[in-house]
Amino acid sequence: MKIVVAGGDGFCGWASSLRLANAGHQVLIIDNLSRRKIDLDLKTKSLTHLYSITDRVKEANKSIGNIFFKEIDIAKNYYDLFKEIKSFNPDVIVHFAEQRSAPYSMISESERRYTIENNIASTQNLLSCIVDINKNIHFVHLGTMGVYGYDIKYGKIPEGYLDITINETSKKDKIIYPPNPGSIYHLTKVLDHQIMQFYKKNWSIPITDLHQGIVWGVQTSETNGNEILINRFDYDGIYGTVLNRFIVQALNNHPITVYGNGGQTRAFIHIDDTAECIKIAIENPPTSEKVRVLNQVSETHSIIDLAEIVSKKFDGKILNYDNPRVELKENKLDVSNEGLKSLGFKPKLLSNQLLDDVSFLNIKDSSKFDVSKVLNSPKWR
Amino acid sequence: MKIVVAGGDGFCGWASSLRLANAGHQVLIIDNLSRRKIDLDLKTKSLTHLYSITDRVKEANKSIGNIFFKEIDIAKNYYDLFKEIKSFNPDVIVHFAEQRSAPYSMISESERRYTIENNIASTQNLLSCIVDINKNIHFVHLGTMGVYGYDIKYGKIPEGYLDITINETSKKDKIIYPPNPGSIYHLTKVLDHQIMQFYKKNWSIPITDLHQGIVWGVQTSETNGNEILINRFDYDGIYGTVLNRFIVQALNNHPITVYGNGGQTRAFIHIDDTAECIKIAIENPPTSEKVRVLNQVSETHSIIDLAEIVSKKFDGKILNYDNPRVELKENKLDVSNEGLKSLGFKPKLLSNQLLDDVSFLNIKDSSKFDVSKVLNSPKWR
Repeated sequence: MKIVVAGGDGFCGWASSLRLANAGHQVLIIDNLSRRKIDLDLKTKSLTHLYSITDRVKEANKSIGNIFFKEIDIAKNYYDLFKEIKSFNPDVIVHFAEQRSAPYSMISESERRYTIENNIASTQNLLSCIVDINKNIHFVHLGTMGVYGYDIKYGKIPEGYLDITINETSKKDKIIYPPNPGSIYHLTKVLDHQIMQFYKKNWSIPITDLHQGIVWGVQTSETNGNEILINRFDYDGIYGTVLNRFIVQALNNHPITVYGNGGQTRAFIHIDDTAECIKIAIENPPTSEKVRVLNQVSETHSIIDLAEIVSKKFDGKILNYDNPRVELKENKLDVSNEGLKSLGFKPKLLSNQLLDDVSFLNIKDSSKFDVSKVLNSPKWR
Repeated sequence: MKIVVAGGDGFCGWASSLRLANAGHQVLIIDNLSRRKIDLDLKTKSLTHLYSITDRVKEANKSIGNIFFKEIDIAKNYYDLFKEIKSFNPDVIVHFAEQRSAPYSMISESERRYTIENNIASTQNLLSCIVDINKNIHFVHLGTMGVYGYDIKYGKIPEGYLDITINETSKKDKIIYPPNPGSIYHLTKVLDHQIMQFYKKNWSIPITDLHQGIVWGVQTSETNGNEILINRFDYDGIYGTVLNRFIVQALNNHPITVYGNGGQTRAFIHIDDTAECIKIAIENPPTSEKVRVLNQVSETHSIIDLAEIVSKKFDGKILNYDNPRVELKENKLDVSNEGLKSLGFKPKLLSNQLLDDVSFLNIKDSSKFDVSKVLNSPKWR
């Protein structure tokens, strides 16, 4: 298939682009390199060395093939985007081109505005291209488990829709799961979903929304052992995801930074599974009348669980910090991931995978570890 | 009170600004005059002569007082907006500054993108100012009845929230009424509502969302008999609302343009009632823990009902046209407006009000009627 990967230079986008190309698909990465620019603004750095997109694509074409790149800001340059999609003529567009850090989206007004404007305009622009170019293009969007909230009243979290009874009429219905986002970033995924529902309803575009858990790890089978293809690895308080942060903290003799008592339970997925799920979703297009929602998660853990696993494996000390976020202190979480599993997804679990990544990474190189970036998350309020 | 009226030069914004000033409030209108510019693009014109905003404000200050004006594009110039709000120090911000035509939002990709980007950024920017300036500012947003959709499964439409039982857990909950927008324009009001819910949850900002019916009429007690203060009156297929269009058609010997069989039932409100409801919502700020939602409607009618009323009163002929919109052919509609009524709202009904407006308007002046603008609505698909 011909696949546009918007945001294909980012953490999940790059891993997925390589997986898709490796599976024989033609991949056009469209990216404005914003994630690299945000690193400059925040003075943060991936622990792994990041090669330029030109070097990456050149190397990928040597070892895998089928990868093209075009630099476009898809939120701002609609007509460039339109021209590129029209000429590439894709079967699928995968949308990773969003600002994806919750803490970043809560820093101040400019990050709030950037996150909303960039994420909404990019979704809207891609869908608008599909309407005007070819309504059969399958649109695959990266959502987040964070749209669901953590209210146990709703039971086990289903895939996107909730079965209810309307009290007044006693009639039954299946509705979009009532969203309860925890940050401006998560809010944008709620907004995206509503936009997709309308495009599906009015123009019958095939759409998949993947509500992804927190991604951890760094290597995938395509990047394994190739230093030019290696993915980014963030450990800072803003872009670093929780498990990756904990590992780096422990390896650098920094206390493991648990917010509150760590009773928050979240869903997780390894970056290699992310790439695999994207491939599965693309190779099995939706047939449903509604937007297809799949929960892209492998397992759930409480934050304190994770901290203890890391503490034990890497001999780290756990410390509890005031939680800068506004969230429940503790929650239970039970999530369905039947959709992807029924399509062949076999989750890689944390318990088996943890050491592989670390040995590869050599993230113990303390010269790259900047302690001032460990606790730089903004306060939510 | 000190009140910012964003979009105060538009149809509902202008009527409301005058009402608020007349009630003794200090009113700062902020507007980018976009509605006047869209008239130039579409080559459409209000049937009433529209004085410049400078003339309007000068005249309003002569006859009423308390009105100020600042030209700012609030979606694009955040820092100008911030400075102005900070220095005016309002108690309330009313948000009319959105692209408000459903047909306009469905013309082509540029109108889709403009409607989403303008409406979302303007809402987000106003709320962001409130977070950074004064979290006690009451934010009043104009929503639309169109967010509800017309599914009778849900019974009588409540005010914003629906009582449900979750089938899996048998637990009860009150959720945001499941949205079902019928156009990109209506979609933006769904998105706005989600944005407001998050700002309320995270920063406890007092917020009212007014889900308004279709507005008709033109004069309010403040504009009555004053040709400089007179409001705009649109009769074209894009910005003209249905009842106003029908009246002008009948008076100009054009068939009354019913889309489909006219079985669509909608909620209506007179422009004078709009202004009154805004005043009531502002003078009675919300005390609820959630975003307050009030249905700003006076009565419901089917489109064919309206056509027949107009046909009888003005001796017009009814013609049925292919419906350019994607909507149910026929629907029933029962809507609660208890919230505003409990605060003192006494709806003006169509049956009593219809002739007053027309006699005042002199809209029979056929030199201003452009027949080419009667059926210029785009096809939804």
